[in-house]
Amino acid sequence: MSHTPDPERVCAAAALTSYWYKGASETYDALTEEEIGNILDKVMGYGHVSVIEHAKFTFSIEDVSRACTHQLVRHRVASYTQQSQRYVKVEELEPVIPPTVKSDPDALRLYNDAVENIKAVYSKLVDLGIPNEDARFILPNATRTNIVVTMNARELRHFFKFRCCERAQWEIREVANRMLDICKSVAPKIFKRAGPTCVCEGRCPEGDLSCGRIKVSSNGS
Amino acid sequence: MSHTPDPERVCAAAALTSYWYKGASETYDALTEEEIGNILDKVMGYGHVSVIEHAKFTFSIEDVSRACTHQLVRHRVASYTQQSQRYVKVEELEPVIPPTVKSDPDALRLYNDAVENIKAVYSKLVDLGIPNEDARFILPNATRTNIVVTMNARELRHFFKFRCCERAQWEIREVANRMLDICKSVAPKIFKRAGPTCVCEGRCPEGDLSCGRIKVSSNGS
Amino acid sequence: MSHTPDPERVCAAAALTSYWYKGASETYDALTEEEIGNILDKVMGYGHVSVIEHAKFTFSIEDVSRACTHQLVRHRVASYTQQSQRYVKVEELEPVIPPTVKSDPDALRLYNDAVENIKAVYSKLVDLGIPNEDARFILPNATRTNIVVTMNARELRHFFKFRCCERAQWEIREVANRMLDICKSVAPKIFKRAGPTCVCEGRCPEGDLSCGRIKVSSNGS
Amino acid sequence: MSHTPDPERVCAAAALTSYWYKGASETYDALTEEEIGNILDKVMGYGHVSVIEHAKFTFSIEDVSRACTHQLVRHRVASYTQQSQRYVKVEELEPVIPPTVKSDPDALRLYNDAVENIKAVYSKLVDLGIPNEDARFILPNATRTNIVVTMNARELRHFFKFRCCERAQWEIREVANRMLDICKSVAPKIFKRAGPTCVCEGRCPEGDLSCGRIKVSSNGS
Repeated sequence: MSHTPDPERVCAAAALTSYWYKGASETYDALTEEEIGNILDKVMGYGHVSVIEHAKFTFSIEDVSRACTHQLVRHRVASYTQQSQRYVKVEELEPVIPPTVKSDPDALRLYNDAVENIKAVYSKLVDLGIPNEDARFILPNATRTNIVVTMNARELRHFFKFRCCERAQWEIREVANRMLDICKSVAPKIFKRAGPTCVCEGRCPEGDLSCGRIKVSSNGS
Repeated sequence: MSHTPDPERVCAAAALTSYWYKGASETYDALTEEEIGNILDKVMGYGHVSVIEHAKFTFSIEDVSRACTHQLVRHRVASYTQQSQRYVKVEELEPVIPPTVKSDPDALRLYNDAVENIKAVYSKLVDLGIPNEDARFILPNATRTNIVVTMNARELRHFFKFRCCERAQWEIREVANRMLDICKSVAPKIFKRAGPTCVCEGRCPEGDLSCGRIKVSSNGS
Repeated sequence: MSHTPDPERVCAAAALTSYWYKGASETYDALTEEEIGNILDKVMGYGHVSVIEHAKFTFSIEDVSRACTHQLVRHRVASYTQQSQRYVKVEELEPVIPPTVKSDPDALRLYNDAVENIKAVYSKLVDLGIPNEDARFILPNATRTNIVVTMNARELRHFFKFRCCERAQWEIREVANRMLDICKSVAPKIFKRAGPTCVCEGRCPEGDLSCGRIKVSSNGS
Repeated sequence: MSHTPDPERVCAAAALTSYWYKGASETYDALTEEEIGNILDKVMGYGHVSVIEHAKFTFSIEDVSRACTHQLVRHRVASYTQQSQRYVKVEELEPVIPPTVKSDPDALRLYNDAVENIKAVYSKLVDLGIPNEDARFILPNATRTNIVVTMNARELRHFFKFRCCERAQWEIREVANRMLDICKSVAPKIFKRAGPTCVCEGRCPEGDLSCGRIKVSSNGS
């Protein structure tokens, strides 16, 4: 939806400030793309990742379940604005359907019937004078919602470690993978190694729950 | 559940550090209760509220709805550990019932029937082999959950401003009021003026949506 | 140095997400300037200031004292990259001079002589083989430094409350006022009421230390 | 100075909340020390380190240089209260002396003379009517200060990674090592693997700047 203009230039100019007596206002315009790449490689190689906090990305994440946004908002170094259920209309209650349900005709029928029933109950509760904010107690986790999220590149890389992992829940993994694609296209130097822990650190922290993509090694052993 | 031992002494000793050459290790034991009260009154009166961040409180909030915890976890300056729905058992699906529903027999019957239906569908989905984490998409916002929260006194006072307000949703207001009672009993000096904005600042920011407890005045006028 | 492109549009589209079933990707392009103004006025009037967190601003603050950056970095909801003193060269040790010193010839002479002496000692320590990072222990608070700061609009408004105040230290007040000017020119709707507490809230929290610009009222009385 | 009482019990009870339908208030008292150890090993082994955020530690760090506290306060997930230089008295200006200076008689003499000179200039500036807050511009980085810090166990472990490292500046490394000793004695299960990156992760991120304690491996290779 939006991001810091020329995010890699901003971060590289900030990084130079650490090491050089010149201010970032002077170096910002002077840096070549190649210099930007070299600076970012160097400082990020040393683990000085705080410089990439200056690059901010805003996403509009739409039509995901409340289950997904409940997980998403647990990442605290970010700003969120979410659709309120105080104002939701019943016509808009098309639910998110998990792939495991979609691919099983019996489960899908059960699921859809249950959702239709819930929608009917929700409407009747509102008709009986129950306020929206209380009637929504009956709405399922599957209810669609929209959320606007702003995160910096450092927190995004951290988010991708956990949420692009095969062990993450399918829906937030889908969201994370699409966010990663966007980040890679906008700031390829910053995100070139981003992804699940196995991609960005070459190790798997999941122990005996690992997906097996790489040989497991636990911390420090 | 737990809190910084003698939280007001810690905060007062920290406050003294600002103004005096002696370290807090020396003043910590020496302060009388009266001195602690005077120091806290003085620094908090000047709006230097960062000193009360040193007082931490941990709460175990149990049997609240997922709707409530979704609001709760939006307060980012805090630490949370929440019951995962990956491991929930259907027998434990006794839902939270809003008071407006409880007091209306027709609404209550509708609500309870809907919950029973959802529980049955959830069980059948699991029996069909749908993983728990996908079957739970059908579970309602009303599902009970437990969460452990640690916040500092400054953030708690900010939390109480919004969540003890009459305009807040009833469930989180109940939680906030019980947390406030606990805080007042443990740290009466820090929380003596805590509460909704009308109590702690003597003004109401809610404009034409105000509950009317105090005469409304908008910001800056 | 850099900021979220069209920051007010981003924040207004995010705000609409709360109240409307449409996602921000759809409303973002459709909003008129007038609608943006109305939305921001409304949500900020209700104190729902979290939406303006989506607007980020990056500043390169140059040639300020270490005393000033020590105060600045205390604002934690921000990202910083600062010039390291491990790499500073003595030739660049032109100090910041407080106006009270500048305007008093005796004080100025004392001050400049002391700085010259410190520079000489610093050089000799380095010549004796003392590492830069230890020799700098002798450098004064007045030493110039550069810092790159990224803050969101909500935190900036909070920062301006304290740091544009007459009671703030002169140097950080100068920095804050210049940052406020830039913010007002880039995002006039978001920052129209920004400034010290007396400007944005119509009250003074400084008690008997107030500058007297407005009649003092302490909290809640 | 202070810490969460029985911090490991709090964290283990919080961790259990994730996996079990019982609330933490019930499990808190029931857990044995052995169970606490097993729970913490398991969740921390999986990288679910957020549970240890519930354990908070408050330190009074005294007689360190302003250079040291400037580095310290850059760790943002913490609460700080620092001695203000607005109120410092010149008699208290005994500076911190780096070991490299202390062990070189020529350097030490230069250093001490420079400090004496600075103290004299500071006094004269104050006598001339320069406000303390401006006179302090001439004070060196070596000036002693006190600071009270509260951090949670997760942030402490992160802090120790960087600041217990041989590459860290000597003074903050000393502070970090003493904090680590205290943490290990209070919460041995939480901090048993804490320390610099080479200790807690078995790898060194410092590249060609490594101290060589372990064989260097850069990220992901």
